[in-house]
Amino acid sequence: MNQVSLSDTQAIAIGAGILGTGGGGSTYLNRLRLNNELRLQGRPVTVIRADDAPDDALVCAVGGMGAPTVSNEKLQEGQEIKRAVRALEDHLSQQIYAIVIGEIGGGNALGPMITALQCGLPVVDGDGMGRAFPELDMDTFMIGGLAPAPFALADAHGNVVIFERIGSAKQAEEFARSLTIEMGGSAGLVMPVMSGAELKATIIRDTLSLAKRIGETVLDCRARSIEPAESVAELCNGKVLFTGKIVDVERRTVQGFARGRLVISGFEKFEHQLEIEFQNENLIARSNGNALCAVPDLITLVTLEDCEPIGAESLRYGLRVAVLAMPAPKELKTPEALAVVGPRAFGYDLDFRPLPGDLL
Amino acid sequence: MNQVSLSDTQAIAIGAGILGTGGGGSTYLNRLRLNNELRLQGRPVTVIRADDAPDDALVCAVGGMGAPTVSNEKLQEGQEIKRAVRALEDHLSQQIYAIVIGEIGGGNALGPMITALQCGLPVVDGDGMGRAFPELDMDTFMIGGLAPAPFALADAHGNVVIFERIGSAKQAEEFARSLTIEMGGSAGLVMPVMSGAELKATIIRDTLSLAKRIGETVLDCRARSIEPAESVAELCNGKVLFTGKIVDVERRTVQGFARGRLVISGFEKFEHQLEIEFQNENLIARSNGNALCAVPDLITLVTLEDCEPIGAESLRYGLRVAVLAMPAPKELKTPEALAVVGPRAFGYDLDFRPLPGDLL
Repeated sequence: MNQVSLSDTQAIAIGAGILGTGGGGSTYLNRLRLNNELRLQGRPVTVIRADDAPDDALVCAVGGMGAPTVSNEKLQEGQEIKRAVRALEDHLSQQIYAIVIGEIGGGNALGPMITALQCGLPVVDGDGMGRAFPELDMDTFMIGGLAPAPFALADAHGNVVIFERIGSAKQAEEFARSLTIEMGGSAGLVMPVMSGAELKATIIRDTLSLAKRIGETVLDCRARSIEPAESVAELCNGKVLFTGKIVDVERRTVQGFARGRLVISGFEKFEHQLEIEFQNENLIARSNGNALCAVPDLITLVTLEDCEPIGAESLRYGLRVAVLAMPAPKELKTPEALAVVGPRAFGYDLDFRPLPGDLL
Repeated sequence: MNQVSLSDTQAIAIGAGILGTGGGGSTYLNRLRLNNELRLQGRPVTVIRADDAPDDALVCAVGGMGAPTVSNEKLQEGQEIKRAVRALEDHLSQQIYAIVIGEIGGGNALGPMITALQCGLPVVDGDGMGRAFPELDMDTFMIGGLAPAPFALADAHGNVVIFERIGSAKQAEEFARSLTIEMGGSAGLVMPVMSGAELKATIIRDTLSLAKRIGETVLDCRARSIEPAESVAELCNGKVLFTGKIVDVERRTVQGFARGRLVISGFEKFEHQLEIEFQNENLIARSNGNALCAVPDLITLVTLEDCEPIGAESLRYGLRVAVLAMPAPKELKTPEALAVVGPRAFGYDLDFRPLPGDLL
């Protein structure tokens, strides 16, 4: 995969939505924005492999921060992340070599390509999560021990803040979350800034290509009038965990997150239910009190017929859905990673158990 | 006034406490810290006049941000403001020429001299408030239209944040307040960075000297066993508004502020009462519903016998107090200033009326 052009964005948006497990923000708006930028620039996004970045080059991951329930309603100004990238370049007196996708899940897969086009830089095929996660410290860059600072946050009003020295990734998350709320609930983030060598040591590779392949599978099934969920599950070594109708949704936007739970009832037997809890992202799926799939493995709701991914902001009563369960990338299942993104890190009294058939 | 040495700090602390109108943080801790730094460095603080700063020099105001109820309990690490100054110097690739006192009220009068000693820089005689105020946008630098950014916030854990582009002083206040709360309720602030020319156009001059003179008056009265309140009021063109005993205090630390009200009863007639509302600083003094003195004029509680200023964090039932009412510096009583620091800016349905005898 060497570039992303207009004809690729639909597939990538679908795939990123499926990898987003409910979070990462809407792909709808960012796809429109990316298409617009591609037309405006009249050239595709250049994609490089992580291993193409020189060890001493400077790269930075970018993304949107905030609750997906907010990002659909409070529109971006459009240049905030570019401004934050430029501010960090000025601050460090060094130019950025490439843009890295912070999280491949949801709209955050597409936003970095807009920034890359605006800055005239390539984007790296890969990301720091292999999915979406709610917090800044939950990526392989932070889990791998890279320094969180300096990083930058920018809002739609032109405000740019550089976090110059920050003690820990958790501290970065707390500070940035607090400021994101003050900025209106969504903000543009540039974090971390890292060397090419650090990038290669920590990135989850080729997830942009994966998102595109997932989306192409969906589009191919749709063209052949097949429900795509099984094919997507197969491609991702996962399975269709459940099909049914959403019969209950509780959702609040608190402390900058969309938190809540939902219940899906089977089509055949109403009592046959799956319950999912989420914090932006779907975290755990239970049936009769038994955890069937838990973070960091991926739990994604898609519309039954079209396999259109459903973000936390779009959940509603009556949707007919399939629930995909897919194993997380191996980088998220090391002991170090599970300490940050495993079930216990989210407050569940549960050890992580891989999905049946997952070889880790 | 060319320097501040160990023999000056007691007087300055008392004077700054009186100018602090309840806020600006405790002078007690910062005086101990300043004395310590003076001993450590073995040299006095060099004091310059604002007009001594070259027009093209870079200076910065510094101070502590947060609720005074917090700053007495959550101790500073000691180097945070110096770190923030250095971070801004690096960010701007320009050296700071002198340290400016952000607010002369309370401990915030003394802290900047510690920073000046640590940085090997002089401190300017003057400040941006002529007293203390609860919010960042309430100084003559911001009222005078200087840019709020770049500014920096630093905490006791070594975290430093640079606010690189910020749309307004009010926005700066909101962002910094939010982050200060996240930092534990108190933080070190460097704001604004300005040129010598900007300093000269906006600073309230010679308030460090004034604080020292007020303190010397108090100490002189104490030495002669005279209650000092009347002498202080005379020096400041103000008056003793009330004497009595605190009979009620309501105080909460909310949203990073110490907010509340207190009631003082006269010694002769209990029904003769004065009510004061405060938000870190004392804002309005009322008797029988009539406002006797209102912000920006200064309302300060001092102990009756010693004229020791009483901060919002030290208010308690039973204290025998005198209440000083003193006219604010003329820079705070322009229409532009009153829009930011007048009674209406604090939510009171009241036009500012100067104290009787104040010539503005």
